[in-house]
Amino acid sequence: MDKWYDDSNLDYSIFISSRLRLARNLSEYPFSIVLDQSHVHEIIDKTLNAIKSAPDEFRFINIDDISNIEQLANFEQHNISQYFLQDKNPRGFLINKNESLSIMINEEDHIRIQSICPGDNIYKAFELSDNIDDILSEKLDYAFDNDFGYLTSCPTNVGTGLRASFMLHLPMLEKTSQLKNLIQIISKFGMTVRGLHGEGTQPMGSIYQISNQITLGKSEQDIIKNLRNVTQQIIDQEIKLRENALKEKKLEMEDKIFRSFGILSNCKIINTLEAMSLLSDVRLGYCMGLDVPKFKFNIYKIMMNIQPGLLQKNYGRRLDETQMNEARADYIKKML
Amino acid sequence: MDKWYDDSNLDYSIFISSRLRLARNLSEYPFSIVLDQSHVHEIIDKTLNAIKSAPDEFRFINIDDISNIEQLANFEQHNISQYFLQDKNPRGFLINKNESLSIMINEEDHIRIQSICPGDNIYKAFELSDNIDDILSEKLDYAFDNDFGYLTSCPTNVGTGLRASFMLHLPMLEKTSQLKNLIQIISKFGMTVRGLHGEGTQPMGSIYQISNQITLGKSEQDIIKNLRNVTQQIIDQEIKLRENALKEKKLEMEDKIFRSFGILSNCKIINTLEAMSLLSDVRLGYCMGLDVPKFKFNIYKIMMNIQPGLLQKNYGRRLDETQMNEARADYIKKML
Repeated sequence: MDKWYDDSNLDYSIFISSRLRLARNLSEYPFSIVLDQSHVHEIIDKTLNAIKSAPDEFRFINIDDISNIEQLANFEQHNISQYFLQDKNPRGFLINKNESLSIMINEEDHIRIQSICPGDNIYKAFELSDNIDDILSEKLDYAFDNDFGYLTSCPTNVGTGLRASFMLHLPMLEKTSQLKNLIQIISKFGMTVRGLHGEGTQPMGSIYQISNQITLGKSEQDIIKNLRNVTQQIIDQEIKLRENALKEKKLEMEDKIFRSFGILSNCKIINTLEAMSLLSDVRLGYCMGLDVPKFKFNIYKIMMNIQPGLLQKNYGRRLDETQMNEARADYIKKML
Repeated sequence: MDKWYDDSNLDYSIFISSRLRLARNLSEYPFSIVLDQSHVHEIIDKTLNAIKSAPDEFRFINIDDISNIEQLANFEQHNISQYFLQDKNPRGFLINKNESLSIMINEEDHIRIQSICPGDNIYKAFELSDNIDDILSEKLDYAFDNDFGYLTSCPTNVGTGLRASFMLHLPMLEKTSQLKNLIQIISKFGMTVRGLHGEGTQPMGSIYQISNQITLGKSEQDIIKNLRNVTQQIIDQEIKLRENALKEKKLEMEDKIFRSFGILSNCKIINTLEAMSLLSDVRLGYCMGLDVPKFKFNIYKIMMNIQPGLLQKNYGRRLDETQMNEARADYIKKML
């Protein structure tokens, strides 16, 4: 069965994915950070029991049962958060077959429902998470306050417990000073822009996440609508820059993009950052309608698969940096 | 009929070509620099008449009868010298079918016989020039002094009037500081190292010419032998550097060479210097036995054809710089 990121149209949109997560806690337990081991296992059991009513089939992965490489791979695929990756407490996550839904148990909150859809599909993502939330709430007693809404470990999540985000490909904006200005303006609207792997990570491949920071005092629908509106303005600017480039310096653009393709398809060693940057050029080429040869997978899937965790996982063993750079170049060539 | 540079083995040797020229003057006329127009035409007529006895068929090209682009193209192919290209006096040159022999009339000297052979063939080149010299001397009265030898316009050519040179591909030596040291040492032996297009030109594509400076007091055979010996020492150092690179950093070497191939085969615009440098990498790859894809022509021929003169000549019209960079990228792609 295809994963959500196997969508073949993914190469032709500034939107890579739409994500939504809901933070929930069980009223009868203290927050994760001060939780006893026995309580953790109770929460896991209760959640596994509750999810049985879902139409989708879920697989439970105990984080201690998988290797460091597999943990990292799941983080790179956005199945689990950085917090979840680095935490030391007992924890696990549920994931459905196409990986559009994951439920982290005992992250910063007891339960974090997350849905991802390809492209510009935040309402669909909301629907997916919301359905799971409804199913779980039938069997679990959520910590909820009539005035505040859902109670969460971190006050920034109190209220809806909702974070919506878009993963966007913004190569042209990145090259200008406009992106920095936009990030500052956006923060005034209670939204934030981050790199590919979220908070504190370096942007790679010109991929940025824009998400809401405020979860309180607004309805889920309003949060999503506001985020979508602000995102549209970013998209519009990226499109404008692309159109101008096609008008004013098409040859230079083509040259850069085709050279990037040439390096990707011929190099023998390549590090993550450079590969991401060259793949970003190729993706821009597709979006701009240039006849850059296609890869077997969409560029976003390739971008995921060249990350250290997924690369080593698919290679089947631990690799040092030089071996990884070689395996990465090799993988990219095989994608042609 | 194939030209001398159509040799398909040319890609696999550090030697690109072996050249030899003989400077000759006619005793009954003053040197070129102070020559009357009527005398110029007499010398041309006498030389054309004398060359009829040669077994090879020669074509005479009056420099004023061809376009600036064609003049430049002939310079890039080493059929004529920079002096000949830039001079304003009436002048012309004879050339045989495979372009291994050219005879400039009214260059710095009345007659300059030049022969080029592919690869490591300086004795063959000497034979070619020497045969022509014999044929011409039957009908022309050379300025010759029993003590000094052949008299020439510039004192540095007096004696044998001979300059032998090797065109070498030295990418590894170029990267080290060794080349500069070598150039200094070589000058002490009465030899000189220059770039692709001779005196005062910038080295391109890691191609260097090594030639004798001294023409007096030694026999032709000794001049050639000394030059060949010194050249061997340069070649040995280049080979040693290549062997070390294959031992110590093969992957990095391969990566660089294949990336260069990737850019060459995908770029949309490229200037001469960059193209020469990338083609040099690919040529190094062939010589080192790497499986870099082959071009239709040998790299040296492609290097010639991407020079401004030959590029415009083959394109059929004058091009501005951007058009040239585009035509160059286009030509390289067609060579695959």
